[in-house]
Amino acid sequence: MAERNLNLDLIPAEEALFKYLSALNGKLVPKFEVISVEESLGRITSAKACAKLNSPHYNAAAMDGIAVKALITINASEANPLELIEGYDFINVNTGDPVFSPYDAVIMAEDLIIVDEDFNEEEDENKNVKITKSVFPNQHVRLIGESIKIGEEILSAKHKIRPVDIGMLLTAGITTIEVYSTPKVAIFPTGSEIIDICASNLQMGEVPEAGKIIESNSRMYEAQVKQAGGEGKRFATVPDNFDLLKDVITKASLEFDIVLINAGSSAGTEDFTVQVLREIGEVIIHGVAMKPGKPVILAIVNGKPVIGTPGYPVSAFLSFETFALPILSVLTGQAIKPKQKIEAVLSEKITSTPKQREYVRIRLEQINGKLTAFPLIRHSGVAMSLVKADGFCIIDIGCECIEVGETVTVELIES
Amino acid sequence: MAERNLNLDLIPAEEALFKYLSALNGKLVPKFEVISVEESLGRITSAKACAKLNSPHYNAAAMDGIAVKALITINASEANPLELIEGYDFINVNTGDPVFSPYDAVIMAEDLIIVDEDFNEEEDENKNVKITKSVFPNQHVRLIGESIKIGEEILSAKHKIRPVDIGMLLTAGITTIEVYSTPKVAIFPTGSEIIDICASNLQMGEVPEAGKIIESNSRMYEAQVKQAGGEGKRFATVPDNFDLLKDVITKASLEFDIVLINAGSSAGTEDFTVQVLREIGEVIIHGVAMKPGKPVILAIVNGKPVIGTPGYPVSAFLSFETFALPILSVLTGQAIKPKQKIEAVLSEKITSTPKQREYVRIRLEQINGKLTAFPLIRHSGVAMSLVKADGFCIIDIGCECIEVGETVTVELIES
Repeated sequence: MAERNLNLDLIPAEEALFKYLSALNGKLVPKFEVISVEESLGRITSAKACAKLNSPHYNAAAMDGIAVKALITINASEANPLELIEGYDFINVNTGDPVFSPYDAVIMAEDLIIVDEDFNEEEDENKNVKITKSVFPNQHVRLIGESIKIGEEILSAKHKIRPVDIGMLLTAGITTIEVYSTPKVAIFPTGSEIIDICASNLQMGEVPEAGKIIESNSRMYEAQVKQAGGEGKRFATVPDNFDLLKDVITKASLEFDIVLINAGSSAGTEDFTVQVLREIGEVIIHGVAMKPGKPVILAIVNGKPVIGTPGYPVSAFLSFETFALPILSVLTGQAIKPKQKIEAVLSEKITSTPKQREYVRIRLEQINGKLTAFPLIRHSGVAMSLVKADGFCIIDIGCECIEVGETVTVELIES
Repeated sequence: MAERNLNLDLIPAEEALFKYLSALNGKLVPKFEVISVEESLGRITSAKACAKLNSPHYNAAAMDGIAVKALITINASEANPLELIEGYDFINVNTGDPVFSPYDAVIMAEDLIIVDEDFNEEEDENKNVKITKSVFPNQHVRLIGESIKIGEEILSAKHKIRPVDIGMLLTAGITTIEVYSTPKVAIFPTGSEIIDICASNLQMGEVPEAGKIIESNSRMYEAQVKQAGGEGKRFATVPDNFDLLKDVITKASLEFDIVLINAGSSAGTEDFTVQVLREIGEVIIHGVAMKPGKPVILAIVNGKPVIGTPGYPVSAFLSFETFALPILSVLTGQAIKPKQKIEAVLSEKITSTPKQREYVRIRLEQINGKLTAFPLIRHSGVAMSLVKADGFCIIDIGCECIEVGETVTVELIES
């Protein structure tokens, strides 16, 4: 039996994260890239974007109708309609057409009286109109820069680009924009007992050998990374081989922004990860006072964050949310989205060890008009409870129990 | 001057949508496709997904330690420690290893007393241990199906797939899943005056000719379609040519699920869209009592929804949100996400015509501890106000004014 790493140094999760981020200080440097505006949906601006053009870039008709010289209309009234001669007193304009000098105002088509009802566009040269109201200079004219002025800030830095922003950037003559690069995350499933069911020859429903474990965390991680604005690359499973693990982590730490190693972070005899990380880098944290998710490893190799996470799906999920997400948010330039929270009445007493923070999965249901929190099975091996859960009730360090009927805060799982 | 379509038949927006969806009844048929689970993030299940495998699919050790026969430990106590012989009374197991008959329980490594402290794995054959507590059958054993049982529902129909769901589907032996297909949306910018700045030879900052309009709505639409779970394909600008427009819409209606035609929906002399749509299909609605967004066209061509939207960016945005989004949500299997709303105190009086619903762009700010709604410029040509806006205050039909200091509901713009 090889040495077991039983003496995990358990510190609270926030303290562990703080220690880790401090150790990474100066090493988490976001990268930037210039991309086409039309492909920038959801990306984060690295600097403010300022207009390159006025909008409109010329005086433009804001209505369909005619462009006139405002001054000549000054005496028009119901009692004294004014006839205007096409080509001399006015020209026809559609919305968006330029209003050139000497014309300086637009009269809406609805306000015109057609002089010759039998007018035929094919045959007749001009089509005069009458108006019964005077107009002001610039009426129904969108002046140069009315919507956007050159140099005006269109988007601030660290802004997540929305569909309306894309439209506005282009309107302001901005066709490329600098954004935070998408952090690249290497994801390594480990363990000789692991099967990659996506790549295996197993038919759906064919039962794998006893002792073989279907690996799914790496695929969950790819999706979590994507949801957080990164790009995950899942590598083939690394068997329990010290030198092999050393090689792949070293290589990945040089090429990727973050390295995730799943499973192999607890005290099992074949859990090489922590030894490997000690040999090739610095282990800042091994084990935190949270459940599930206790045997996490937070390390730095070649200046890059390398995180070893436990194998049970619930533990794997929570370790990512607690430690990988804040690092991704630094690299993507995004503020960490605060979890949506809701209050509910606890359906049964929960007891917990005061030595660690526990995340109890909760299903929410309206019972007699009261939002009620039902704790789900707490063993981290019972992964379905994570899918069934609407969120987590967090029992903090120092708290031993919450009584039935107490109001608890539930952190909702993002969809 | 060609005929102008001045008599738009103005009906309220909900009524227009209802009439349109009724006319489309039986024609909006979602399509489904089978995809790999690992690529299913954010997709919507078309049917419930049930487990193909038990999880675990064998009795598995839930702890690192030893597997024993529970029965033989019955008399072990502090006063009467029991020595166990490796290979006979127990075998070493790590978390996840199978617990085969005759073994039926696991004792944690932490609870073992090593008998021979000088034991050397290389030389000695067995390494016996002592225990001081009895164990129950199945202690620290995850039984077959404990986490997931064959046939158990993993996800319901119409469920948006999250990272945790991907993990759980794979764990349940499900590698492919049927989801709603991504609706394909054809996007046509129209108008001879239009420039596609993304594809033009203009340098950034080079001012286009007067009368040329930078087209950006089609790129905004691509992003809005993507955000709604569809796939937008932007076509090259269609000039103001009746036959050409007829051709492209007819062709697109056969190949795409939705067709969007931007600009050309109002009463301008070159606005052929509505005539074209009347000739090749059925125009259900032309013009709705909303502002901005009034001159929308809701039509059906070859059984497909074809929507003509106005050219001003704010109008283009709101027409999409009001009419295209509900249709996309039918095709993607998603419930329309209710807009997030917030209450705020109005900073100045707003007047509006009671004949139409008006969407007033609002910037929100905390003033003396009160969330305050500042109305932004209301002309739909002033597009920057859409980027600056946090949301819309909706002034419904029949309402002529809202006084300063009144509390209004602001619908927030999704980021």
